[in-house]
Amino acid sequence: MSWLDLPDDTGFGVDNLPHGVFSTPGTAPRTGIAIGDAVLDLAAATGDEVHATGSLNAFLARGPGAWADLRAQLTGWLTDEAHRGRVEPHLVPRSEVTLHLPVEVADYVDFYSSRHHAENLGRMFRPDSPPLTPNWQHLPIGYHGRAGTVAVSGTPVVRPSGQRKGPADDAPTFGPSRRLDIEAEVGFVVGAGSSLGAPVPLGAFADHVFGVCLVNDWSARDIQSWEYVPLGPFLGKSFLTSVSPWVVPLAALEAARVAPPPRDVPLLPYLDDAGTQPWGLDIAIEVRLNGELVSCPPFDLMYWTAAQQLAHTTVNGASLRTGDLFASGTVSGPRPDQRGSFIELSWGGEEPLTLSDGSTRTFLEDGDVVTLTATAPGTGGGRISLGEVTGRVEPSQTEGPR
Amino acid sequence: MSWLDLPDDTGFGVDNLPHGVFSTPGTAPRTGIAIGDAVLDLAAATGDEVHATGSLNAFLARGPGAWADLRAQLTGWLTDEAHRGRVEPHLVPRSEVTLHLPVEVADYVDFYSSRHHAENLGRMFRPDSPPLTPNWQHLPIGYHGRAGTVAVSGTPVVRPSGQRKGPADDAPTFGPSRRLDIEAEVGFVVGAGSSLGAPVPLGAFADHVFGVCLVNDWSARDIQSWEYVPLGPFLGKSFLTSVSPWVVPLAALEAARVAPPPRDVPLLPYLDDAGTQPWGLDIAIEVRLNGELVSCPPFDLMYWTAAQQLAHTTVNGASLRTGDLFASGTVSGPRPDQRGSFIELSWGGEEPLTLSDGSTRTFLEDGDVVTLTATAPGTGGGRISLGEVTGRVEPSQTEGPR
Repeated sequence: MSWLDLPDDTGFGVDNLPHGVFSTPGTAPRTGIAIGDAVLDLAAATGDEVHATGSLNAFLARGPGAWADLRAQLTGWLTDEAHRGRVEPHLVPRSEVTLHLPVEVADYVDFYSSRHHAENLGRMFRPDSPPLTPNWQHLPIGYHGRAGTVAVSGTPVVRPSGQRKGPADDAPTFGPSRRLDIEAEVGFVVGAGSSLGAPVPLGAFADHVFGVCLVNDWSARDIQSWEYVPLGPFLGKSFLTSVSPWVVPLAALEAARVAPPPRDVPLLPYLDDAGTQPWGLDIAIEVRLNGELVSCPPFDLMYWTAAQQLAHTTVNGASLRTGDLFASGTVSGPRPDQRGSFIELSWGGEEPLTLSDGSTRTFLEDGDVVTLTATAPGTGGGRISLGEVTGRVEPSQTEGPR
Repeated sequence: MSWLDLPDDTGFGVDNLPHGVFSTPGTAPRTGIAIGDAVLDLAAATGDEVHATGSLNAFLARGPGAWADLRAQLTGWLTDEAHRGRVEPHLVPRSEVTLHLPVEVADYVDFYSSRHHAENLGRMFRPDSPPLTPNWQHLPIGYHGRAGTVAVSGTPVVRPSGQRKGPADDAPTFGPSRRLDIEAEVGFVVGAGSSLGAPVPLGAFADHVFGVCLVNDWSARDIQSWEYVPLGPFLGKSFLTSVSPWVVPLAALEAARVAPPPRDVPLLPYLDDAGTQPWGLDIAIEVRLNGELVSCPPFDLMYWTAAQQLAHTTVNGASLRTGDLFASGTVSGPRPDQRGSFIELSWGGEEPLTLSDGSTRTFLEDGDVVTLTATAPGTGGGRISLGEVTGRVEPSQTEGPR
């Protein structure tokens, strides 16, 4: 297929072509395309200044026509031997590059779209009520997160401090979080913005969204549980959100499109995707703690699709901007080994996970490394990779009782 | 005091010097300083390119030393007749300028810091519980809003549509909001950012925050009440947040600093401002509906100060960026005519306001114009103006039953 010598299971074949921002020692960050074990230096190979800005934003703002044109050009370059002389000098071994945050994030919205995740949390926190709140089946619940603390994979996860108060405590205490957790999510990057007052219907999803990344929405459950009534999560989430460095274009996920699960209640027309080709995606996520596989969250079971999330976000007239990032919320499946957070895996800390070395884990310990990876069916018949998002927990820098 | 012929009650004397972004027909947006009835074209008067970028961000990023140096230079120019020849050619009548969004907003955080507002909403929505949630007196509750829909005063307020569901409804319906409201707030603009992992203590507030504006956080109460459990407000707020065009430097508010109300419970050390000169501010807000004064919210009674809000926002290690905007939350005082929202002024719509023409109002009607203005004691002995933030309600552009 390609004149490059790519192994069948590369995950970064010519049917993927994810975009990222890289540098090598002494050079400025610029746009690259992952191909096999290499990065194609797009700034050098194309000579287009848009790829030399240090983020994908300027290119994404050109819109879906430009995205498709570039993809067609790259496919030609990488499959037709005639282009080898032109392309090969601009291939850099992936092992030699530093990867940067691919997108300057405009607004960051986090959803809550896994029914199994929402039900698990409901059962833990509101055991006497129905597990889902009454609105959950009618709209994709979401909230704005902190765009300024979205960082690229590998950024250290310093244990945050804040106010914690248990049910038996008289008053809150201050100190490092004792319930530091992950949320395994899939993120969607807006390329082409929209105008104030112009909702984006379900069918226009791919006119605005460029591609997909992995997201770990690090969460301090003890800080979150004390602060979040009535206005939602704030400091329990805002210390860091990590994203994978490679943004996989929607065009690479055509073979991964699936129907979402059946809906329990009729949806209002702006959310009803029954008459459209829906945007469920068969993305298989793997969660590893210190290298050990602890969970396999299945994205294809998400109740709300990203197209529904986008339609909902804009139905009140809110505009989109290039660089808007919206994430799915924790991906959890029905089985215990498909849960995308430690609060679910350890059932609120009451049922510790036993690891292969015999140790147990409820929430994250200092030194723990969590890595999310994911693959999806590619258009070439194999599976494409969404890369990875990883982070190591560093000790708190704040004094106070843990 | 100034060689300009300024009336005593200008509100824009030499002790104010708010920064904004303006243009005249056929010219590009650039930074200006409001002085009397004029705007001083800072780009032209200083020749510094930083004032020609179309937003205040690049100048604000220079930090508090640069802010103080410019203020001293401007004070000299405007008070010493010797500079008249240099300055006067760059004064443009305010009536001839268009004012733009002064700051590219990075992250927008909205707080909930008025005790009277929080108690009013608690009494309306949770009549059988204590009016304040247990966390309210221990931390300044806040959440992230949508930065991309923060717009300058004068931007039309198109009535948003969304899902509404009353307690008696079986299912939500879609249509224009029936409970469109305001929130009269004061906003704070971060000039100098901070690093990930470096909390900003109370005493460093003025090292990071440049100045103050007025904020109207337009709110669709029916959309908000259906969506906000458990992750907080989203579409009920994200359609538009309006800000005043002039950012008043903190340096202009030295005479407005007051102690906040006594605290009911001991505060954790990072929030305890007892040993510092606190950042309560004696700002008097006026709310007008179609020109008629309907409320006078007193900012000096806010329970949580902006310095406490900033310390809280960063205590988990979250970083600040130039352009971060954080708003106080609705400012309401103890008296009915000091309430900063119509949901409070009309007590949930049950006690309509009677206007001077005999009409009544619960929530906003199409065509309504709401204007917030505010003043504070200046260092010159009079009162300085924070300008105004205004908006006119336009009919919904979405079909559906109101």
